[in-house]
Amino acid sequence: MAAPQSYFDDSHQLIRDSVRRFVEREILPHIDEWEETEEFPRELYRKAGAAGILGIGYPEQYGGSHEGDVFAKVAASEELMRCGSGGLVAGLGSLDIGLPPIVKWAKPAVRERVAPQVLAGEKIMALAVTEPSGGSDVANLKTRAVRDGDHYRISGSKTFITSGVRADYYTVAVRTGGEGFGGVSLLLVEKGTPGFSVGRKLKKMGWWASDTAELFFDDCKVPVENLIGVENAGFACIMANFQSERLSLAIMANMTAQLALEESLKWARERQAFGKPVGKFQVLKHRLAEMATQLEVSREFTYRQAAQMAAGRSVIKEISMAKNFATDIADRLTYDAVQIMGGMGYMRESLVERLYRDNRILSIGGGTREIMNEIIAKQMGL
Amino acid sequence: MAAPQSYFDDSHQLIRDSVRRFVEREILPHIDEWEETEEFPRELYRKAGAAGILGIGYPEQYGGSHEGDVFAKVAASEELMRCGSGGLVAGLGSLDIGLPPIVKWAKPAVRERVAPQVLAGEKIMALAVTEPSGGSDVANLKTRAVRDGDHYRISGSKTFITSGVRADYYTVAVRTGGEGFGGVSLLLVEKGTPGFSVGRKLKKMGWWASDTAELFFDDCKVPVENLIGVENAGFACIMANFQSERLSLAIMANMTAQLALEESLKWARERQAFGKPVGKFQVLKHRLAEMATQLEVSREFTYRQAAQMAAGRSVIKEISMAKNFATDIADRLTYDAVQIMGGMGYMRESLVERLYRDNRILSIGGGTREIMNEIIAKQMGL
Ligand SMILES: Cc1cc2c(cc1C)N(C[C@H](O)[C@H](O)[C@H](O)COP(=O)(O)OP(=O)(O)OC[C@H]1O[C@@H](n3cnc4c(N)ncnc43)[C@H](O)[C@@H]1O)[C@H]1NC(=O)NC(=O)[C@H]1N2
Ligand SMILES: Cc1cc2c(cc1C)N(C[C@H](O)[C@H](O)[C@H](O)COP(=O)(O)OP(=O)(O)OC[C@H]1O[C@@H](n3cnc4c(N)ncnc43)[C@H](O)[C@@H]1O)[C@H]1NC(=O)NC(=O)[C@H]1N2
Repeated sequence: MAAPQSYFDDSHQLIRDSVRRFVEREILPHIDEWEETEEFPRELYRKAGAAGILGIGYPEQYGGSHEGDVFAKVAASEELMRCGSGGLVAGLGSLDIGLPPIVKWAKPAVRERVAPQVLAGEKIMALAVTEPSGGSDVANLKTRAVRDGDHYRISGSKTFITSGVRADYYTVAVRTGGEGFGGVSLLLVEKGTPGFSVGRKLKKMGWWASDTAELFFDDCKVPVENLIGVENAGFACIMANFQSERLSLAIMANMTAQLALEESLKWARERQAFGKPVGKFQVLKHRLAEMATQLEVSREFTYRQAAQMAAGRSVIKEISMAKNFATDIADRLTYDAVQIMGGMGYMRESLVERLYRDNRILSIGGGTREIMNEIIAKQMGL
Repeated sequence: MAAPQSYFDDSHQLIRDSVRRFVEREILPHIDEWEETEEFPRELYRKAGAAGILGIGYPEQYGGSHEGDVFAKVAASEELMRCGSGGLVAGLGSLDIGLPPIVKWAKPAVRERVAPQVLAGEKIMALAVTEPSGGSDVANLKTRAVRDGDHYRISGSKTFITSGVRADYYTVAVRTGGEGFGGVSLLLVEKGTPGFSVGRKLKKMGWWASDTAELFFDDCKVPVENLIGVENAGFACIMANFQSERLSLAIMANMTAQLALEESLKWARERQAFGKPVGKFQVLKHRLAEMATQLEVSREFTYRQAAQMAAGRSVIKEISMAKNFATDIADRLTYDAVQIMGGMGYMRESLVERLYRDNRILSIGGGTREIMNEIIAKQMGL
């Protein structure tokens, strides 16, 4: 294909403008407080729904817009990250990992009920795959769902579930069949279902504004119609879902790096030591040059894979590379940003302090760096 | 010199045992709570004083012990770090940067009054060098102290001062003379002196259990007898003091790395994925091997410089190297430890989560990595 001048067009610019205004009006004035209190108001989902932000990328029939337009989603995600809180973005955006399987594979009645509520921000949606005994080895998950007439009875537990404390709907990975990936299914579980309970809100290094929870299933009965897709074919759905999650995480990491670079540059220009701006010291000057280089390369690589996905091509290897590369450079850039700001970089009043803590999850969540490397190596025939 | 079999002897082992018991009895049962509430009880100073821990390395006449025995101090610091909170160690240990100038250079009447109270843990001591306008360029500090009869009148401010909120005594760097390093002096300021006030407690990425404060001097009058050392010769005292602070920070970093390695190893042996302990995957196995290698090299280098200091040799270059090397490997080891523990490494219930945040200050405080490199390069004739 001919290289496009930009991956973004005018419609994407409109999205950018509207999300940026939303962030400036609804999030930035409160975000420091929400981070310190480790919660943002539920009302924000409704506001983001009303502003059309939650629906970007989803079918119009459910209240969405720009279905299949990958760069519409990229533009929205990038602007949302300008709030400077990975936790807020992860919490407000947990529907983006929980809802796609519903939209794509749930029974029509389920999908037509659930999707519009979630995209309007009236209901909160989570994805529950990881278990206390392990997250990397998805094929080995232990939460059992046994068919009993027109219900499944679920027993087991999940952990580290984003929006787990206050979600209304959960897309839950369960074992309906035998061992390994061929026995895994996805089920929709609703808050309030008898036998389903939510544990404590987990305290974390970062992502403070988002809640993270343990979930417990104790002979929890859900109707068979809540099955998402075909029984025992859930593993492929989970893996397909991971692709767009990994793209999102790469974009989050790149934007985190972008913000870290912007903050560092501002500081390096203004802060004086030994009679000059610290950005004039060669070692910081070159570090800033390298930070900018790493970010540009990472962002272009990520965009390129987004464009391939938009064109319907399979980029399993490359998306894993994009996630690893972006999360890695963002760890380095946020580290450097803290260093450049000196003592102030260590203070919670500095944005870079939060960026450093928030970014540390990105090479763990959605598949660890090691699991990405397993995927890449496998695609290379190893 | 012949290589000693160990840098530590039996007397150091006794110190280790007693500090370890103190940590197990007085700190470990409470440390998670103290970290979350960002404060430890003032009473702990008295307990540590009574247990003889605060006095290690100080003259017996002030209630100290093991004066001049560098490895006694190393042993005590290492064991104290087993509480797993850099903040607690920094807060309880702020006397180690504030008191040495008093003991070495203050007027006898001042020193004989202040030192015993501080070593008994009845009074808290802080060091105040850094200013809002900068910490690296010490020679350029702006807080003014003007002689007025038998008093100095101080005007200016300090920031990022460890134990600044609740200290009773402050060793404060001020400008008594002209520009540059030749105009700097040290003054003892006592809490409650008119014109002296303490600002808010700063919120930080890590070191939560220690308080960090801004200090304000508004025509604050302190008696001339509070001058520490000779007027306008304070810069050399500050630099001499930095040497032992940097050794301490290297030791903190090495112990942080040690704890991170221990936690990682435990996890790697127990945590299962894909049917085996994760420590059996070659990439983690080799990473753990490299973590252990980096730590061993760093610790030996630091010990060697401590031995040189104990022998009275000047190791300006090497102490800066030890600090940079140790803080750097500890940043890497704590990063790796979080990675190895996966999602659990990101939870505040994991020790490695705190180690990662706490360690980030060590390549900034006590002189940044860049300032250490300036010192090293200068010693290399550049
Ligand atoms: C804040 C937060 C939010 C999260 C979240 C986590 C966190 C911390 N999720 C969980 C996340 O996906 C898992 O933590 C991640 O997949 C890793 O699983 P683990 O059980 O923690 O580590 P693990 O026990 O699977 O792995 C431990 C360790 O072993 C390594 N490993 C594992 N296998 C191999 C191998 N074959 N070769 C080499 N090394 C290997 C890993 O890379 C790692 O370093 C998550 N999950 C959800 O389902 N829903 C969510 O909403 C969500 N949100
Ligand atoms: C938690 C905490 C506790 C602390 C603490 C800080 C923190 C965060 N202290 C302050 C600490 O020593 C300073 O932050 C440190 O010296 C750096 O000064 P800055 O003003 O923050 O950075 P800065 O403005 O001096 O430097 C900004 C930036 O520029 C670089 N830089 C500066 N000069 C050069 C150069 N010539 N070449 C290249 N790069 C250069 C630095 O390395 C850094 O990356 C401290 N201070 C006390 O007096 N008492 C304490 O108890 C104590 N405790």
